[in-house]
Amino acid sequence: MTKEKIVLAYSGGLDTSVAIAWLKNKGYDVIACCIDVGEGKDLEAIKEKGKQVGAWKSVVIDAKHDFAEQFVLPALQAHAMYEQKYPLVSALSRPLIVQKLVAVAREYGATAIAHGCTGKGNDQVRFEAGIHALAPEMKIEDPIRDWHWSREEEIQYAKDNNIPVPITKASPYSIDENLWGRANECGILEDPWAAAPADAYDRTVAIEDAPDTPTTIEISFEEGVPTAIDGEKLPLDELIMKLDHLAGSHGIGRIDHVENRLVGIKSREIYECPAATVLLAAHKDLEDLTLERELAHFKPIVEQKMSEIIYNGLWYSPLMKSLVAFIDQAQAVVNGVVRVKLFKGNVICEGRKSPNSLYDKNLATYTSADEFDQEAATGFIKLWELPDKVYAQVQKKALATKQEQINNKGVTADAD
Amino acid sequence: MTKEKIVLAYSGGLDTSVAIAWLKNKGYDVIACCIDVGEGKDLEAIKEKGKQVGAWKSVVIDAKHDFAEQFVLPALQAHAMYEQKYPLVSALSRPLIVQKLVAVAREYGATAIAHGCTGKGNDQVRFEAGIHALAPEMKIEDPIRDWHWSREEEIQYAKDNNIPVPITKASPYSIDENLWGRANECGILEDPWAAAPADAYDRTVAIEDAPDTPTTIEISFEEGVPTAIDGEKLPLDELIMKLDHLAGSHGIGRIDHVENRLVGIKSREIYECPAATVLLAAHKDLEDLTLERELAHFKPIVEQKMSEIIYNGLWYSPLMKSLVAFIDQAQAVVNGVVRVKLFKGNVICEGRKSPNSLYDKNLATYTSADEFDQEAATGFIKLWELPDKVYAQVQKKALATKQEQINNKGVTADAD
Amino acid sequence: MTKEKIVLAYSGGLDTSVAIAWLKNKGYDVIACCIDVGEGKDLEAIKEKGKQVGAWKSVVIDAKHDFAEQFVLPALQAHAMYEQKYPLVSALSRPLIVQKLVAVAREYGATAIAHGCTGKGNDQVRFEAGIHALAPEMKIEDPIRDWHWSREEEIQYAKDNNIPVPITKASPYSIDENLWGRANECGILEDPWAAAPADAYDRTVAIEDAPDTPTTIEISFEEGVPTAIDGEKLPLDELIMKLDHLAGSHGIGRIDHVENRLVGIKSREIYECPAATVLLAAHKDLEDLTLERELAHFKPIVEQKMSEIIYNGLWYSPLMKSLVAFIDQAQAVVNGVVRVKLFKGNVICEGRKSPNSLYDKNLATYTSADEFDQEAATGFIKLWELPDKVYAQVQKKALATKQEQINNKGVTADAD
Amino acid sequence: MTKEKIVLAYSGGLDTSVAIAWLKNKGYDVIACCIDVGEGKDLEAIKEKGKQVGAWKSVVIDAKHDFAEQFVLPALQAHAMYEQKYPLVSALSRPLIVQKLVAVAREYGATAIAHGCTGKGNDQVRFEAGIHALAPEMKIEDPIRDWHWSREEEIQYAKDNNIPVPITKASPYSIDENLWGRANECGILEDPWAAAPADAYDRTVAIEDAPDTPTTIEISFEEGVPTAIDGEKLPLDELIMKLDHLAGSHGIGRIDHVENRLVGIKSREIYECPAATVLLAAHKDLEDLTLERELAHFKPIVEQKMSEIIYNGLWYSPLMKSLVAFIDQAQAVVNGVVRVKLFKGNVICEGRKSPNSLYDKNLATYTSADEFDQEAATGFIKLWELPDKVYAQVQKKALATKQEQINNKGVTADAD
Repeated sequence: MTKEKIVLAYSGGLDTSVAIAWLKNKGYDVIACCIDVGEGKDLEAIKEKGKQVGAWKSVVIDAKHDFAEQFVLPALQAHAMYEQKYPLVSALSRPLIVQKLVAVAREYGATAIAHGCTGKGNDQVRFEAGIHALAPEMKIEDPIRDWHWSREEEIQYAKDNNIPVPITKASPYSIDENLWGRANECGILEDPWAAAPADAYDRTVAIEDAPDTPTTIEISFEEGVPTAIDGEKLPLDELIMKLDHLAGSHGIGRIDHVENRLVGIKSREIYECPAATVLLAAHKDLEDLTLERELAHFKPIVEQKMSEIIYNGLWYSPLMKSLVAFIDQAQAVVNGVVRVKLFKGNVICEGRKSPNSLYDKNLATYTSADEFDQEAATGFIKLWELPDKVYAQVQKKALATKQEQINNKGVTADAD
Repeated sequence: MTKEKIVLAYSGGLDTSVAIAWLKNKGYDVIACCIDVGEGKDLEAIKEKGKQVGAWKSVVIDAKHDFAEQFVLPALQAHAMYEQKYPLVSALSRPLIVQKLVAVAREYGATAIAHGCTGKGNDQVRFEAGIHALAPEMKIEDPIRDWHWSREEEIQYAKDNNIPVPITKASPYSIDENLWGRANECGILEDPWAAAPADAYDRTVAIEDAPDTPTTIEISFEEGVPTAIDGEKLPLDELIMKLDHLAGSHGIGRIDHVENRLVGIKSREIYECPAATVLLAAHKDLEDLTLERELAHFKPIVEQKMSEIIYNGLWYSPLMKSLVAFIDQAQAVVNGVVRVKLFKGNVICEGRKSPNSLYDKNLATYTSADEFDQEAATGFIKLWELPDKVYAQVQKKALATKQEQINNKGVTADAD
Repeated sequence: MTKEKIVLAYSGGLDTSVAIAWLKNKGYDVIACCIDVGEGKDLEAIKEKGKQVGAWKSVVIDAKHDFAEQFVLPALQAHAMYEQKYPLVSALSRPLIVQKLVAVAREYGATAIAHGCTGKGNDQVRFEAGIHALAPEMKIEDPIRDWHWSREEEIQYAKDNNIPVPITKASPYSIDENLWGRANECGILEDPWAAAPADAYDRTVAIEDAPDTPTTIEISFEEGVPTAIDGEKLPLDELIMKLDHLAGSHGIGRIDHVENRLVGIKSREIYECPAATVLLAAHKDLEDLTLERELAHFKPIVEQKMSEIIYNGLWYSPLMKSLVAFIDQAQAVVNGVVRVKLFKGNVICEGRKSPNSLYDKNLATYTSADEFDQEAATGFIKLWELPDKVYAQVQKKALATKQEQINNKGVTADAD
Repeated sequence: MTKEKIVLAYSGGLDTSVAIAWLKNKGYDVIACCIDVGEGKDLEAIKEKGKQVGAWKSVVIDAKHDFAEQFVLPALQAHAMYEQKYPLVSALSRPLIVQKLVAVAREYGATAIAHGCTGKGNDQVRFEAGIHALAPEMKIEDPIRDWHWSREEEIQYAKDNNIPVPITKASPYSIDENLWGRANECGILEDPWAAAPADAYDRTVAIEDAPDTPTTIEISFEEGVPTAIDGEKLPLDELIMKLDHLAGSHGIGRIDHVENRLVGIKSREIYECPAATVLLAAHKDLEDLTLERELAHFKPIVEQKMSEIIYNGLWYSPLMKSLVAFIDQAQAVVNGVVRVKLFKGNVICEGRKSPNSLYDKNLATYTSADEFDQEAATGFIKLWELPDKVYAQVQKKALATKQEQINNKGVTADAD
């Protein structure tokens, strides 16, 4: 009898290697699937290891380009920041990974998908909600949430199943990263009063160690898409990675966040997002120049909802599609160049220009070139203030009437 | 016959000195009223000058304390940032000034109030809407908007009326400041592609000139009010001014913003808000630790509306009262200390603690102390993903049915 | 050894009577607690029955007044309508019941609370979230969700434990009601294409059977609280019940809603809310007259959030407190009288007046009494339209430039 | 020398006929342009009259179809209701009219456009903002706002310029209508306490006069577009007009609204919107069945903003485009049939079905067919309530600690 096939999101690490054995022992043919979203993985080595530790099939996918174009870009254009702080690093890669896992499952006729998330994080929700939004019929396995092992028990199981156990001491941290950033939790970071130690960071230098000379670059945008740095055109994934390296070297992008998880707890996270920090600032700066006021003032409402939706694992929801349609529509005019100074942890947008700039010097100036109709202001103010002026008049009169009634009552009472 | 009295918002500068003459010539007894909101004015000298240039009465008011307590504090607690960038420096002082002007007008039986705003800025709206919200019956004069003079004509009028004309060359900039920050526009700043030159700044050093050693401070909050720095209790206005100096010396708080004015144009502004930048970051950081999730996620909607309302001159509107009530209610638990590192333009909240901290290490930890019920997660995910899973099932089936209908039609068509 | 005490939300029906036996068998001393929120229960009979079927203690509470004042009123003032249709009947009574259950538990030193909700509705969430928000240490039992019995098994258990079983055939419907309305689901209602049959309704006549003559009443409000009908002052609970009867007799308040439950499914519900329908319409009508525009335009955002929060069982959340503070603050001016015509299912607010009315005939009129400054309009329009006018100019020019560039390229190309 | 051409929005009535003369006398060649948006105008007669009273050119346009498809439909799909009451009748036709006027202006090389709005309504803003958003260079004339005439003066001017003056007494009302409804203001309606008299209505019968037998119809929707009534396919404009007549005959669609005008005053308006009332209810009902929860809960935020934007004359703003993109995206699944009972002023959606229905009887049922996983609920509740439970625990502990500190201080004090 042929076995059921399962696709496992495989990282090459101990947990998911043990998961291969565990799923095999449960009766599955395991398709190990490793997806590179910009961590700089050695895909060939991981492919090999997947086979070695018992996968029926080992598949690797370089998804950096798709990740940048389809997932990072909408988030950038929506200035997606969960709780105004976190640029949604892991939350963005999950739906990309899910998309690839489902595609592999369909290619090989697999009936189940497995991931290696713990039972207290957001990622389990993102994986499972994502998978079922694309493939509602798919069975899901989560070995790590299921096996309830201590570290020691896991290592014993690994040995029993011929899974190589790394001899280096495990990092105190739990890390996830991709080209949009790096997330770090656990260990000393679990004390929100403690400053994150130096070894918690990897993609950014400390400000102390950043160069004493700034780097100034010009970032070009076409319809809301960053397309070039200093005039050099680059595919989005490459542009991000190049900028990430540069900004990280100036100590840019460190974020220290006590955040509300979807599963109901607060957790303290250290993020490093050098490229994201720069691009989010530059894109906003260009929108400040090119977006019409009413749109600029409503877009943050849409942005906040999109941030929550992404964080909460609902990338493939119909609401997300509508939110993206809103944002997309707004990007046509976001063309131009932002000059950004990277220096000692700071992203300084010091100049911006655009063929679609709504800044009109002749309207804004206080010089004699002024074309603004100052007479119009008096009319504007009269109607603008009218509701509150009437309100003030009415409440004043209402108060006086009430006082009069009280006084009159007093008089009547006296007369009795 | 007794003359009508008018209260003029008096700064001691040329414009409002000329305005005294202009209003006098129009038939008013002018009460010059100078209000200090933290610019460090020499109030006595201004009082004297007011009288000298012809005011019927010259009044000065130190309003720093009221400004901090009644206007800056609600804005801080609401993280008020117009267009996510500008902490509402001038927009906050206008209602305070209006409040004082109206009080003076009532004290002296004045029937009119005058301000010296131009006809293309937001401040004229803030003054007039504010005055009429407090005193709907009050007449308003705006000499500068009315007189339509060139610089030369103004100087001639000054000379004709014995108003001393400063001999120093006029600054190219138009500046407004108070203890919450400094706003600068005009001159070279009217070119949004040009970087703001060094002389555009006054309260912050350039990052290049900031010390190479960070300063780390602990800011204490009680019910959302910053009450102490490094344990030293200070009245809010003093705390802000002390912190402003300190943060400014580290190059913190420079903001470069192309913003949408209420009067319909975009303008480019350079702000310096050292204390505001630090306090807004620290207060948000403490809220991240102490606010419950649903409140934390809705508060930004309220914050954005409040920012707009303040910017647009509607401080004294009934909506403002309701927004403040919302924010107030949320502050009871915002107690604790945030440890902030000030360094090279960066505000780094590196630790925070609170008796009301909702961060629970035993729930968040990945160690054996874990008290989180990981079993609950599977149930949670099932119901969380249910709407989108059903959605996926239904659309899949609907598509299949539609396809079948098309196919069947094909068959029928063939059969014909 | 003394037993643990548990407070059970007791209705007097079969399910909760069996629950008494079940909890007793589990080792608890059961305190049966029946709370009247306006269903017109015979509290004494239920108290007696509670004891009869084995409760250690039987407690009854008439909570109609508290329910109206503390729970219905804030919802009315916030125009709370879940998904713009459902006035939150059951969702409002749950936190009141929870409050009473916790108070009884504390009075008797009980360590647990039990409710009788099924495992697929919203009420289980409302009970449990509510209890833990007031008493996080409290143990919770939900017998019905736990025992997994068929109807037959439940009846057998009842017989085995001497619980009287009603001989009348069970209703096909599942009903919950209180003074704010009546909710009905199940049976034929589970088919959303089927019209609700006559027997699904209880508090409203069919429009066909409603009188051919309207009833016109005047409802008075003081600071947003309905205080009198036709001048007769009534406590809020009595006013609601009186109005409910009257409006129901005119066929008012039937609602047919396919709604999204918190637990992830859609369900079809039939509500009858005669009084709620009238009061919500009248209160909104009076707010239209008395609320200033900006407040009137933001309040719905707050209202919608509050509706969701209440529906989702988070009455005792800190967000709810802030939302209520916002609404409260807005009610001071909601004074006056609304004249309402009740007729054939229609609630027609045909006249309204208020000492705080912001409607100013002399501003609104088109007669010669007009005091509105029509000149001001031209200035207003100029600034109002300015952002979009500049936008149009810029895009027109940008397009032309782009076209020109394309043409020039063409020329250059030709020249090559 | 050739004269400047101006396009005038021409209705055939006295005001705009006089305007032709006035504009001619001002030196323009006047192109009278009459646009039918469903008032049932005699276009040929108006065209003739335009020429008669002196237009250089007289143009008529039947725009009913365009109006329905391009303007009414997006508003319907967005459930656009200003202040939750007014379906934006006039506000919707203005941008359509503007679009046609600009097209005619471009066709004939006109440099100006004239409208006949008064200086205190919203329509002047909608015309002028709309014109400049499409044609920022266009000059605008508003004769009625400019000429400041009394009725008598206007009639004299008409006589002097050979404009025929109607002999019937002028209506006390000011009316605007199109296929989406009818708006009425002025006269007795200016007293918000007075009920609107019978003669204020035209398209609806009084409920008293509505038939005693209901009409039940089935309305079909395809991707959010109403396409058929009782299976009969109709173009949208015809469907609306047919339904309008039918619903009006049942007394449906009367609205009595004290609303906030953009120009800062409150005004009392009587609307009749029979078709709009029915279609808005039916479309919402079908969305309740087919929209996923998160989308259904955010869409009202978008809807409210769109309603304001339309009301405020910003149809052609970039924000509007983004809002429409959001709504559009959501309509793909809004397919199906709603069965609606029209009776005595009531619109009763009593049944609805859809191939995209998300209502799943097997999930919702309380019968044995139940497929809902009730076990999952306990896990869901645990995580759902967790933030508020932790909040309760923390505040309880914080309070206790504070109390203890106070007590200890007491002890210490005593000890001194």
